[in-house]
Amino acid sequence: MILVRTETSPEDIGGMHAAQGILTARGGMTSHAAVVARGMGKCCVAGCNALHIDEGQKTASLGAHTFREGDFITLNGTKGEVVLGQVPLVQPELKGDFETILKWADEIRDIGVRANADTPADARMALKFGAEGIGLVRTEHMFFEEGRVQAVREMILSDDTEGRKKALQKILPMQRNDFIEIFKVMDGLPVTIRLLDPPLHEFLPKTDEELQEIAADMGVPFHKLQARNKALHEFNPMLGHRGCRLGITYPEIYEMQVEAIMEAACRVAKEKVKAIPEIMIPLIADVEELRLMREMTVRIAEEVQKRHGVKVRYDVGTMIEIARAALLAHEIAPVADFYSFGTNDLTQTTYGLSRDDAGRFLPYYVEKGIFEQDPFVSIDRKGVGLLMRMAITNSRKIKKGMKMGICGEQVDPVSVEFCHEIGLTYVSGSPFRLPVARLAAAQATLKKKMKGGVSRATV
Amino acid sequence: MILVRTETSPEDIGGMHAAQGILTARGGMTSHAAVVARGMGKCCVAGCNALHIDEGQKTASLGAHTFREGDFITLNGTKGEVVLGQVPLVQPELKGDFETILKWADEIRDIGVRANADTPADARMALKFGAEGIGLVRTEHMFFEEGRVQAVREMILSDDTEGRKKALQKILPMQRNDFIEIFKVMDGLPVTIRLLDPPLHEFLPKTDEELQEIAADMGVPFHKLQARNKALHEFNPMLGHRGCRLGITYPEIYEMQVEAIMEAACRVAKEKVKAIPEIMIPLIADVEELRLMREMTVRIAEEVQKRHGVKVRYDVGTMIEIARAALLAHEIAPVADFYSFGTNDLTQTTYGLSRDDAGRFLPYYVEKGIFEQDPFVSIDRKGVGLLMRMAITNSRKIKKGMKMGICGEQVDPVSVEFCHEIGLTYVSGSPFRLPVARLAAAQATLKKKMKGGVSRATV
Repeated sequence: MILVRTETSPEDIGGMHAAQGILTARGGMTSHAAVVARGMGKCCVAGCNALHIDEGQKTASLGAHTFREGDFITLNGTKGEVVLGQVPLVQPELKGDFETILKWADEIRDIGVRANADTPADARMALKFGAEGIGLVRTEHMFFEEGRVQAVREMILSDDTEGRKKALQKILPMQRNDFIEIFKVMDGLPVTIRLLDPPLHEFLPKTDEELQEIAADMGVPFHKLQARNKALHEFNPMLGHRGCRLGITYPEIYEMQVEAIMEAACRVAKEKVKAIPEIMIPLIADVEELRLMREMTVRIAEEVQKRHGVKVRYDVGTMIEIARAALLAHEIAPVADFYSFGTNDLTQTTYGLSRDDAGRFLPYYVEKGIFEQDPFVSIDRKGVGLLMRMAITNSRKIKKGMKMGICGEQVDPVSVEFCHEIGLTYVSGSPFRLPVARLAAAQATLKKKMKGGVSRATV
Repeated sequence: MILVRTETSPEDIGGMHAAQGILTARGGMTSHAAVVARGMGKCCVAGCNALHIDEGQKTASLGAHTFREGDFITLNGTKGEVVLGQVPLVQPELKGDFETILKWADEIRDIGVRANADTPADARMALKFGAEGIGLVRTEHMFFEEGRVQAVREMILSDDTEGRKKALQKILPMQRNDFIEIFKVMDGLPVTIRLLDPPLHEFLPKTDEELQEIAADMGVPFHKLQARNKALHEFNPMLGHRGCRLGITYPEIYEMQVEAIMEAACRVAKEKVKAIPEIMIPLIADVEELRLMREMTVRIAEEVQKRHGVKVRYDVGTMIEIARAALLAHEIAPVADFYSFGTNDLTQTTYGLSRDDAGRFLPYYVEKGIFEQDPFVSIDRKGVGLLMRMAITNSRKIKKGMKMGICGEQVDPVSVEFCHEIGLTYVSGSPFRLPVARLAAAQATLKKKMKGGVSRATV
């Protein structure tokens, strides 16, 4: 089944899950369709300008050909081709020569490769593609799952701390069970877990109809729900009440999450599974934010371990995804066990550029050469890269060899080479992108060694 | 007349203009009410928690007292006091000792003081308060004026370049006349004019009723207007299609603005008025954007001068308001005659913090000491200040003595001292804040001299 759309948006996520391939008329490398399909490991042809869709008639035309629901088309994601009719497909196998080359790459490379994974299924996929750990678990994806979002909404709509705590107690066992499963899959490998990041209003429904339904379900008056929804509205959600700002103003949310993580780690420890949680605080702009969140994390982690009579190794670190955090990394390093560069948000704030809104001018900029490249596809070495270099150099002056990774999905070969050059400990991206990242990491290592050799020879 | 509101929003602007004073129940130093009142030079008490307003009844209560429309209250903006009844008022006069002290301050200080002014009336006020030039004319404020917004909306709603050019031709003479008036007031003093900055949807109405009215006025089908309005919607307008991104994708807009500026300058030149326009390109993230906009500006400026047979001195510079521009200032300096640090936007992007949305957590942060201060009130020396220092140092290595100012309204004494310390040419803020800025500038100069003296003595 192939999903054919003018362009996709977050509401298409169900259809994208169901589809084997995705075809859109608009968009490019960083369009919603391309990014999500890449994460899902699905074939996608985005921005096929010749495609015209008539949603009313449920038909689409490509040049002189019109096809309708049920007709067969075949996509070639590598070449961006749409073929009318069925083409026999081969399931790629990561075996034989492919496996040999990747084995060689792993032997050569001196930079780690992890995967971004939000579920136990993702974690298994990550291992299959050679991940040496999870570089990013987005806990909010667990909040969105069916049967849970109800409790999350209850939490958001509560008027007071008590109400929020009650709702959070319903979410706690679900989060704990997820972490238990993930830890079991990743036995002995590090798992970086980011505490809740997006603004709360992302969990509330968008239309009055949906709101009405929920109000009825929850036995809350519609107007109250509507007022709360309106009160949570933000002009610039990207720069709003999110990340650690949520954890600081509603401490009970992060407290529940840390408890779920440490509970899970202690429980699996009793089954001889080695959990290595790296608890990560998002959106730090000042060291004081991390200091507060670290204190909270350590307090709860120690409580949970005491309760279980078990010792678990855990780290507390932070995302570096805001320019100010990169500029003041020397102040942050003493309080952080590790950094993970969130290059998506770091690119957005360094450029003053929202990825969701850039579609109106960024393609034109790239086409005309005003920007050398789309900075969301490959890391901008000059600007974003300078901030990363400053943060790394200044922090390692204080903490030699400090663990630092990147989890912003920029694991294309050029970015991997850059990450290697500036001394990151690992890169992390979607499981399906790992084979290329492993190869690129080996190439970067060899390239550096060869340069080193040449420079030694010429000295 | 005093405007009493729970909090104010942009729609209250008419009421704020009409009012002599403003009283709000919510908000602080950087709330909408406080910021706008400061700009208007009006008395404001913001965040009076004891105040409860019943909009339906048109009454307000303060403790045991209830007052209604028509009752007298008096505000003391300095102390944040609300006095029931009428208190005899004195109009402050900038004369006598006050004038003497400011004269001394002007003799001592070695950093310039300019005003932000959008209209000829503002410009006159600026001179009265001692401005040595205008540091920021926000041309979009001219777009919002009555009788003009119609033409602006026509421009935005046009489907093609031709349609936009036609609408822009209606705006051109209005903008030109504004500039003529401002140049006449500021005869011989520099006037920094920022080309269109905000996203276009800010000019479109928000409600369906208003949209319907405009559709009728313009003879455009409602659904077309609605679709265009929806198409212009942005998730994060602050990081969206604005500033030079508009000028690059719709060159006809900036071309019209440059033509209006240079037309005005040439016309007043014939009346022996000396216009010194400094044309400023907003929201640069990469030198290529400025290069393109500079070429366009010079091309049109030369055309207009040739047409009039007049030579006018003009500069082309840029805002430094995005972290990347500050980081790469050494690349930008060769193409810029001057910089103006837009410390509002630079603070927003450096902190990843929207001023419009910060109200939900920033007051808590400041109260708990998580942030040392509200970075929108006084410049954040450590983070934003570091970016400014880098930009200044790296650029002046290439262009010694390059003209650089600040136009972000942070002209409190502490910020003025910082601006002096890092070597800015001038500060610019609301006319009503200039006397304090002039005094602070003199104090900063003296302080530095004294420190210099001490260090010489101890060497």
